[in-house]
Amino acid sequence: MVITKEQVLQALSHVEEPDLKKDLVTLNMIQDIHIDGNRLSFSVILTTPACPLKGLIENACRNAIGHFISKDIEVSVNMTSRVTTQKNTGVPGVKNIIAVASGKGGVGKSTVAANLALGLAKAGASVGLIDADIYGPSVPIMFGLEGERPKATQENGKTRIEPIEKYGIKLLSIGFFTDPNQPVPWRGPMVSTAVKQLFNDADWGELDYLVVDLPPGTGDVHITVTQTFPVTGAVIVTTPQNVALADAKKGIGMFMMNAINVPILGVVENMAYFTPAELPGNKYHIFGRDGGKKLAEQLDVPFLGEIPLVASISESGDAGMPVVLQENNAMTTAFMDMARLVAQQVSIYNARGVTDKNVVNN
Amino acid sequence: MVITKEQVLQALSHVEEPDLKKDLVTLNMIQDIHIDGNRLSFSVILTTPACPLKGLIENACRNAIGHFISKDIEVSVNMTSRVTTQKNTGVPGVKNIIAVASGKGGVGKSTVAANLALGLAKAGASVGLIDADIYGPSVPIMFGLEGERPKATQENGKTRIEPIEKYGIKLLSIGFFTDPNQPVPWRGPMVSTAVKQLFNDADWGELDYLVVDLPPGTGDVHITVTQTFPVTGAVIVTTPQNVALADAKKGIGMFMMNAINVPILGVVENMAYFTPAELPGNKYHIFGRDGGKKLAEQLDVPFLGEIPLVASISESGDAGMPVVLQENNAMTTAFMDMARLVAQQVSIYNARGVTDKNVVNN
Repeated sequence: MVITKEQVLQALSHVEEPDLKKDLVTLNMIQDIHIDGNRLSFSVILTTPACPLKGLIENACRNAIGHFISKDIEVSVNMTSRVTTQKNTGVPGVKNIIAVASGKGGVGKSTVAANLALGLAKAGASVGLIDADIYGPSVPIMFGLEGERPKATQENGKTRIEPIEKYGIKLLSIGFFTDPNQPVPWRGPMVSTAVKQLFNDADWGELDYLVVDLPPGTGDVHITVTQTFPVTGAVIVTTPQNVALADAKKGIGMFMMNAINVPILGVVENMAYFTPAELPGNKYHIFGRDGGKKLAEQLDVPFLGEIPLVASISESGDAGMPVVLQENNAMTTAFMDMARLVAQQVSIYNARGVTDKNVVNN
Repeated sequence: MVITKEQVLQALSHVEEPDLKKDLVTLNMIQDIHIDGNRLSFSVILTTPACPLKGLIENACRNAIGHFISKDIEVSVNMTSRVTTQKNTGVPGVKNIIAVASGKGGVGKSTVAANLALGLAKAGASVGLIDADIYGPSVPIMFGLEGERPKATQENGKTRIEPIEKYGIKLLSIGFFTDPNQPVPWRGPMVSTAVKQLFNDADWGELDYLVVDLPPGTGDVHITVTQTFPVTGAVIVTTPQNVALADAKKGIGMFMMNAINVPILGVVENMAYFTPAELPGNKYHIFGRDGGKKLAEQLDVPFLGEIPLVASISESGDAGMPVVLQENNAMTTAFMDMARLVAQQVSIYNARGVTDKNVVNN
């Protein structure tokens, strides 16, 4: 039996990318077709290595070949990716900037930002993380990098900062440049300058995603970052408490304001419930129930999942290693799922290529 | 047997107030001595109704009468109090202003402030609560007062605001005057004016303690409040996480700065551990262990106790009624103990009558 590239493309044109609502061939996602007798191999170029539909799409391709050509073909599918981008992020080499924000402090925004960055990297993407939480930078402690100072070199009279690499991602924190024991009595303009330097004066290289941990609330840093760098979208972190939800709503309102106009990639509900590691069936909704999910529904933005708190009696927090890197448990799984959903939203947004703030949601 | 007032005072002069390190007679704490045959009654005027040593002092008085006069006297002790003050707080009728602050948001600062105010009131004090957390006011939700507006009257061309009374305390929140769905884009000076009005333009009446819930961090509101009103002392709230502790240290640093110079009444460790209501023996140190206690030791300030998280599987938070008012559980007890320790520190500070910032600690 002799098959042709055209037959293969014809067959695969029946496979729709469920998010982008077009077929894989039209989307130019099929490449490297090789035919050797009844052996067929091709690559599917996904829009992100963290694609949550990876398995689904691969199966659909195999089925299409079997159905439209022949079941006797030995199909080898190479699922790969090239992360999409839509606009110039203002940082050379960086395809997408993802802002992580919360209305209220202490809801685990930095934990979500760190695990999002590491989850995307674990899925195969090249990732950077900027900790722009000027009044409470967490990255130095969370990554076990207290007291570290990034290398800085002079180049043509300009300072170049080298991000620190840890656990496979590049990172910079405002905390690397401040004294952890002293309050930071900087006023607005000084803060803005410092934060811009983390983007502009650093050697980020080629990044699929640059995750930015913003301070809680709605302040100078938010305005500076969103007006200086075209942010792809914002992830809003909340806990299920009413007081946190009220503040999250304000945070979302800020990103949707005309002057800022950053798409909301979705809402993450952190500390959704507590589960003792010894009693995985027990769910204690310490801070309320389904608050984040309801908020997402109410504001008609995607819900990116709920992250439980898991601990055992013997544990006592602060390991210096974000949980997504640790052994499998309910938190690790929840964070990986969240990272995939965020990547998916970025891909959807990039594919639509429009700037309307509601594009990520329909 | 005939006893005299002099004998009684002589006997009670052997009883030392353990915190103030002087005897009750010298401290003028014994009043209303009545002698009727072998019946003796007198009042002990404590410096706060929330005195944690109340029982201890009463016993010591009874023992002193028995030991120095006679065991055959029928003693009736009326333990009462008159809350002390040391300086003009800048708010007429208000004896003490207690600021509740945290370095990081989301550590439960507002929960501690609300339960401190209610705990002091439960012990018998007259208490007010100002929610000055401009970017995330929690009092309206925590007290089930969403949508409430305090009455305002004009008096000689000046606005007088009437605090709302609930659960036996008077309260005002910046949230009563802002839209819960909109971000508050106020700049520093506007915030300062609004916060000052909560103190100056409200009819607080006679208060033993006015508890102020400050925003997290170190910002304009802190500077305004501490420089405008002589704050008696600050309670610092933290969780056991390293990232929260690092920020708490900065917060404490701010209060100790010469320009601010507010005594640190102590550190409260909130969310110290999680205990399922069904399994009260299980302690899950979700956020770390003993962080607050160690911080207090390190900075040589009083430790005001650890507040656990208690929940059952059926519960889901946000009851609109602070926990100290709810049925007895480990949280209620912990909050009452904390309120007593705070009142004790205020009394110690007032008794010393000096402004050195380290007075509360020895």
